[in-house]
Amino acid sequence: MRFERKDLLDLRTISSEEIELILDTATSFREVLERPIKKVPTLRGKTIANLFFEPSTRTRLSFELSAKRLNADVINFSSSTSSVLKGESLLDTAKNIIAMKVDALVIRHSSPGVAHFLAKKLPVSIINAGDGAHEHPTQGLLDLYTIREKRGRIKGLNVTIVGDIAHSRVARSDIWGLVKMGANVKVCGPPTLIPKDVDKMGVKLTYFIEDALSGCDVVIMLRIQKERQKEAFLPSLQEYREFFSLSEEKLKLAKPDVLIMHPGPVNRGMELPAEVADSTRSVILDQVTNGLAVRMAVLYLLLTR
Amino acid sequence: MRFERKDLLDLRTISSEEIELILDTATSFREVLERPIKKVPTLRGKTIANLFFEPSTRTRLSFELSAKRLNADVINFSSSTSSVLKGESLLDTAKNIIAMKVDALVIRHSSPGVAHFLAKKLPVSIINAGDGAHEHPTQGLLDLYTIREKRGRIKGLNVTIVGDIAHSRVARSDIWGLVKMGANVKVCGPPTLIPKDVDKMGVKLTYFIEDALSGCDVVIMLRIQKERQKEAFLPSLQEYREFFSLSEEKLKLAKPDVLIMHPGPVNRGMELPAEVADSTRSVILDQVTNGLAVRMAVLYLLLTR
Amino acid sequence: MRFERKDLLDLRTISSEEIELILDTATSFREVLERPIKKVPTLRGKTIANLFFEPSTRTRLSFELSAKRLNADVINFSSSTSSVLKGESLLDTAKNIIAMKVDALVIRHSSPGVAHFLAKKLPVSIINAGDGAHEHPTQGLLDLYTIREKRGRIKGLNVTIVGDIAHSRVARSDIWGLVKMGANVKVCGPPTLIPKDVDKMGVKLTYFIEDALSGCDVVIMLRIQKERQKEAFLPSLQEYREFFSLSEEKLKLAKPDVLIMHPGPVNRGMELPAEVADSTRSVILDQVTNGLAVRMAVLYLLLTR
Repeated sequence: MRFERKDLLDLRTISSEEIELILDTATSFREVLERPIKKVPTLRGKTIANLFFEPSTRTRLSFELSAKRLNADVINFSSSTSSVLKGESLLDTAKNIIAMKVDALVIRHSSPGVAHFLAKKLPVSIINAGDGAHEHPTQGLLDLYTIREKRGRIKGLNVTIVGDIAHSRVARSDIWGLVKMGANVKVCGPPTLIPKDVDKMGVKLTYFIEDALSGCDVVIMLRIQKERQKEAFLPSLQEYREFFSLSEEKLKLAKPDVLIMHPGPVNRGMELPAEVADSTRSVILDQVTNGLAVRMAVLYLLLTR
Repeated sequence: MRFERKDLLDLRTISSEEIELILDTATSFREVLERPIKKVPTLRGKTIANLFFEPSTRTRLSFELSAKRLNADVINFSSSTSSVLKGESLLDTAKNIIAMKVDALVIRHSSPGVAHFLAKKLPVSIINAGDGAHEHPTQGLLDLYTIREKRGRIKGLNVTIVGDIAHSRVARSDIWGLVKMGANVKVCGPPTLIPKDVDKMGVKLTYFIEDALSGCDVVIMLRIQKERQKEAFLPSLQEYREFFSLSEEKLKLAKPDVLIMHPGPVNRGMELPAEVADSTRSVILDQVTNGLAVRMAVLYLLLTR
Repeated sequence: MRFERKDLLDLRTISSEEIELILDTATSFREVLERPIKKVPTLRGKTIANLFFEPSTRTRLSFELSAKRLNADVINFSSSTSSVLKGESLLDTAKNIIAMKVDALVIRHSSPGVAHFLAKKLPVSIINAGDGAHEHPTQGLLDLYTIREKRGRIKGLNVTIVGDIAHSRVARSDIWGLVKMGANVKVCGPPTLIPKDVDKMGVKLTYFIEDALSGCDVVIMLRIQKERQKEAFLPSLQEYREFFSLSEEKLKLAKPDVLIMHPGPVNRGMELPAEVADSTRSVILDQVTNGLAVRMAVLYLLLTR
């Protein structure tokens, strides 16, 4: 199978075959990362632009390092220094950047659909690095990769996602990807933080974490955004912690070898107690490493079609 | 002919032969930009520092990419993070940077003459990337390149520059370059935004855009700086737009194949209606691409003397 | 002798043999910096992360260029854009970065001991680029390198350090290094800016600059931090200048070929009159160049153990 897409915009419209291809490609790049010389010349002479209109550290660094390890050149563009300040439209900014013979744009923006919009208008590859509460497809892919790496398969596994499902682009990409790959997905959180039609995405819903954890193989804990309390989505952070944090006690309901995942950065003591975040069942740092391999695979597949 | 200069500071004091040499060199780099591997090893082991004391996106990125595509190393230095904040003089900052064995400084600064000052004091190549309202020579060169590329020549063409001539370093570099290369240059704008002695630069002056456009081969629209209104140079933006924006209607006065140029970022609906900015006569994005080739040529010529 | 350390954290606990090895290694990299192609492929495929939690220009640029000239990849991470803002602990941030297969962290932080803490917790090399008022070991090493380069030896030289000894990480690293290498070190400054137990570090103390300069081979002038006045450590800047600035007059007390050093950025007219900073006895810019060679040596020795 060859990868035919110009862009990676979401996991909603991608096929399970395409996901398999990305994960298989990532496996070979994952091996490169263990070598003494962690570089391959695959994208030498290509240029990738990171356009980040929201603050980000790990995702931007991950894309930057992925590109550099494929020997591509990288330029970084963030909103604070940008012509966007001078009133130029996002499309004009993007057109100007690709006029500098840039091969791919990695874009993070607070508005859902920005990546799709640019992909339609522009001839180069667009990679969605997070568009509002919509999707964050490379995070979804690295979660799939990590589960497959640790368990040998995704199909048939019980995966629980706990937290602010409604505002989470990570949750959305995870759900589309996991359901497509045959996992049994449950979501769990306070009613104010669950999107209305979530069952139409093929998942089960529960408001009780005990129910969500019971018999699960993988639990993905989402970061609680403290600002949601101000917006009145959360009664109190203490109450949230009491009901939804992943305590050792609650974890006993899951399978003994449960994988604990989190997209980071972790609020220690909030959604995850420190001892759980640091336990051997936690694969949070593996997710970070695998993120590099997955992003290398995505850049490679898009730019060598 | 060999290039003998240490620095590129302005187009006022450069000869037409030197301009030709830069444009010819840029032609060969322009071709590199169309290759699958858009890099040449010409400046491997050289280091170029971008010193930007004014916010900039496209010019800084253009220099950064030009340097990288010649395989030079690039370091970026902007005023917000700089020792300049700690009270160090600009000259001391520059001396410290070149003590790190940097081969060229690309400098943008709000004060006219900064690049000339540094060029006199320092042994490395200085490239003026914009000094106040004085000059922006690589922008002038990329405009010349684009005209020559599209029309095959510059000599004898009627070129009109419309907008805030007084505060525009782009206008000043364009005028010196165009006049030197034999174009017939007209400038046009509201009287408050025209420098007093502009006729001494070898151009014609008109306050009426209809007059300026009549029979012209190339029109360079300048960006209107909205802050000029606060400074009382402009009565109102609406009035400016009515008199000086490049409407389809007014464009009929120009030659049918007129080239429309703009240094960017464009204020759509202000100096240029969207449909004109996006029309086939517009070469605004070609200017951006050509800017890379011209900057590669300048870096190459200065650093391989 | 082989270099066995994982980290470079301070000069207090390093041996004179290790210092010699670093300086000897730096000598060969210093020569690379004079070549037309100032790069060696020694660290190709390695990645170095600069984590700067305090504003810095020259130190960050120096590490960045040192890494690039060894062909390593560099990523820059500064506090303003970081997840640290999202409440993530420094250790989590560092763990996430090294999960991206980073080989060394260069860290600057306002808290003393941060580099030591990370070095104990993490498997990769940690280089202290300044931790509060504690140490700045690469600055100490480049000062040693510069003295040895200019005088052929360090042992037996009379070295005076003038200024705010109490708050200076540079002073502390210089003192440990110089004493270890056999120099006779005197420190001098206003009583409020001298640490209490400084004599236990093996140096002599004087409050009179005339006494400090008398017969000295090398004088290291520290930068006066103007904010110390607000904190009531300094009665007035004028008074400080009168007593402690290095005037031509006072300099006559030193040996005729005295070396004048300063870690930069210099407050011209405050601790150093301009004519002294620019005199032939000043080696301030040599320090900057040597800093590159020393940092290349440190990166090389740590990453090729």
